[in-house]
Amino acid sequence: MNTKLEGHKVVILLWYDSPPAFIPHLQAKHPGLQILWHNCNTTKVLPEGTWKDTTALLTWDIIPELEEVPKLQLVQLTSSGANHCFGKGIYEKEDVVFCTSNGTHPPQIAEWVFATFLSFQHRIPRYMEAMREEKWTPTQIPAPEDSVGLRIGVLGYGAIGRQCANVAKAFGMDIIVFTMRPRLTPESRIDDSYVVPGTGDPNGLLPSKWYHGTTSESLNHFLAQDIDLLLISLPLTPSTTGLIAKEQFHILKKKRTFVSNIGRGPIIKTDDFIEALEEGWIRGAAVDVTDQEPLPKGHKLWKAKNLFISPHVSWRSTKHAARLLGVLETNLERLSKGEAYVNRVDKVRGF
Amino acid sequence: MNTKLEGHKVVILLWYDSPPAFIPHLQAKHPGLQILWHNCNTTKVLPEGTWKDTTALLTWDIIPELEEVPKLQLVQLTSSGANHCFGKGIYEKEDVVFCTSNGTHPPQIAEWVFATFLSFQHRIPRYMEAMREEKWTPTQIPAPEDSVGLRIGVLGYGAIGRQCANVAKAFGMDIIVFTMRPRLTPESRIDDSYVVPGTGDPNGLLPSKWYHGTTSESLNHFLAQDIDLLLISLPLTPSTTGLIAKEQFHILKKKRTFVSNIGRGPIIKTDDFIEALEEGWIRGAAVDVTDQEPLPKGHKLWKAKNLFISPHVSWRSTKHAARLLGVLETNLERLSKGEAYVNRVDKVRGF
Repeated sequence: MNTKLEGHKVVILLWYDSPPAFIPHLQAKHPGLQILWHNCNTTKVLPEGTWKDTTALLTWDIIPELEEVPKLQLVQLTSSGANHCFGKGIYEKEDVVFCTSNGTHPPQIAEWVFATFLSFQHRIPRYMEAMREEKWTPTQIPAPEDSVGLRIGVLGYGAIGRQCANVAKAFGMDIIVFTMRPRLTPESRIDDSYVVPGTGDPNGLLPSKWYHGTTSESLNHFLAQDIDLLLISLPLTPSTTGLIAKEQFHILKKKRTFVSNIGRGPIIKTDDFIEALEEGWIRGAAVDVTDQEPLPKGHKLWKAKNLFISPHVSWRSTKHAARLLGVLETNLERLSKGEAYVNRVDKVRGF
Repeated sequence: MNTKLEGHKVVILLWYDSPPAFIPHLQAKHPGLQILWHNCNTTKVLPEGTWKDTTALLTWDIIPELEEVPKLQLVQLTSSGANHCFGKGIYEKEDVVFCTSNGTHPPQIAEWVFATFLSFQHRIPRYMEAMREEKWTPTQIPAPEDSVGLRIGVLGYGAIGRQCANVAKAFGMDIIVFTMRPRLTPESRIDDSYVVPGTGDPNGLLPSKWYHGTTSESLNHFLAQDIDLLLISLPLTPSTTGLIAKEQFHILKKKRTFVSNIGRGPIIKTDDFIEALEEGWIRGAAVDVTDQEPLPKGHKLWKAKNLFISPHVSWRSTKHAARLLGVLETNLERLSKGEAYVNRVDKVRGF
């Protein structure tokens, strides 16, 4: 036990300054810890000698070379996914632990999911148009189908999927989920990621039915369960890349499922997605992620029918920094006590 | 007991045709009941002799004169409010019971409330604009404040307020409520309106604190409780008319409260509302009701800053008819058994 973290150095790479109380608070907890907070937004170049003593690192996509960080033990990512680190030297090195910031995003992402889905269902953009024209249109726009008894299908039941399920239940929806591994026992349904108290479904009690599998047959069987809102909350791994393609959109035709993607863009095959939207196989979609990011001007996805696109921002919140630093603080404490980390990435599975 | 409802006649005035199964189903339950379904949208004029034997009536705003309906016992309104009936002969007659359709609207109205509030918080309209210009703007638009720990203040804790509270809780909000009458005991917090199973808060368990009163001091005290989202879900009565005016908007300055009105337009003083929006005392608002309806072209409310207006449609849903006919069926059964009606209007209170 080295609760003071003597000889340790944490490098925090973020795009904003430290909240005033954070560094003194962390320093008081671990007097031996050297703390370097670097605002990447104001200064692009890291101070000389940043890396050589670094034992812990908080970062999004600035990933040092393996040779630069001989003492590195812990990488705390700001993201829920680790896919952007695959193949990097420090990721591939067994004794560098990677942790995600799972659980710091679900409240705001669930808000994004329901803001976009319900705006679509309630035709909010059409009312905004009528408003601009100062037209009172009480009957000209079709009545929405409310969510009572509708079914949300959650692909990947992690921290984000669980908070979306929690909200869906309040709106009266039925919840079904699909996971790669079977979750047949109550214990296997528990998610031990960081969770904002009072949110989510940490014990996995909300779904009326669990589906699982690693084959396209098992996925297709799940997609055929009369899903009204399909939420893609999967990590990007080799096995999830291109998972939702023409064949899957065909299955979704029956209910003209609304598709919400807050996972990663390449999980959906873009050309097939555009075809499904243009042909009306699905009633609409909202995506916060695209296969190419930034999505270039002129890309045909921008103009696809009944689609809302936002530029990978659903994770953003004025409260995100505090939650993220809370996870970092927890993991530094666990490092100091030699305890198991929260949100540790299983490098074989890739999340 | 006259379970067959011999000698009774129900007139159903709606703006659509009967669902195929409904009339045969109701007739089988009450073989003696005469049923007249009239689609007011396709035929303006009622058949001759509609009124004289009518004992029960389902209607929105077609209210017969007292002399026309000597046998009338029950008026089932399609609305949650009864204010449009004040002063009418049949409303003022003591032995004609009025019932609202309380509980048939909360799921869709709660969706409208959170679709509009969360779209505002997450700047969805700005992302839609960026999308039209095919611009990827991941940092240019400020991060939203998510709802965890925010406070919703519900003015009038009826069926609609309760379903909004249920949803707010799933998003991690704190809930406080204001009612005219004190609700100091668990029993007094129960709402016995019709409720869609699994939704709402029929037992009044969700609020962290209840406020009450009939004076502007008591209302102002409630409004001073650091409310982030003020939901106006009150009926329109003489005592709620003009309730939210300049003085109240001044109190809301501190948190720049977002105001959502799904009650009735005249509860807010329009000129003061426009001033509060233009001056930024409140961060924004969404209203489904206005003081004048239809809101005329050229009215300055149309152009008020940070305001979303919809034309009194938040109650609409493809599922509304089934719920409404369910309430009518329940009340016809209670009429036949001499039991207490569901959603009965207290004519003294006016709701």
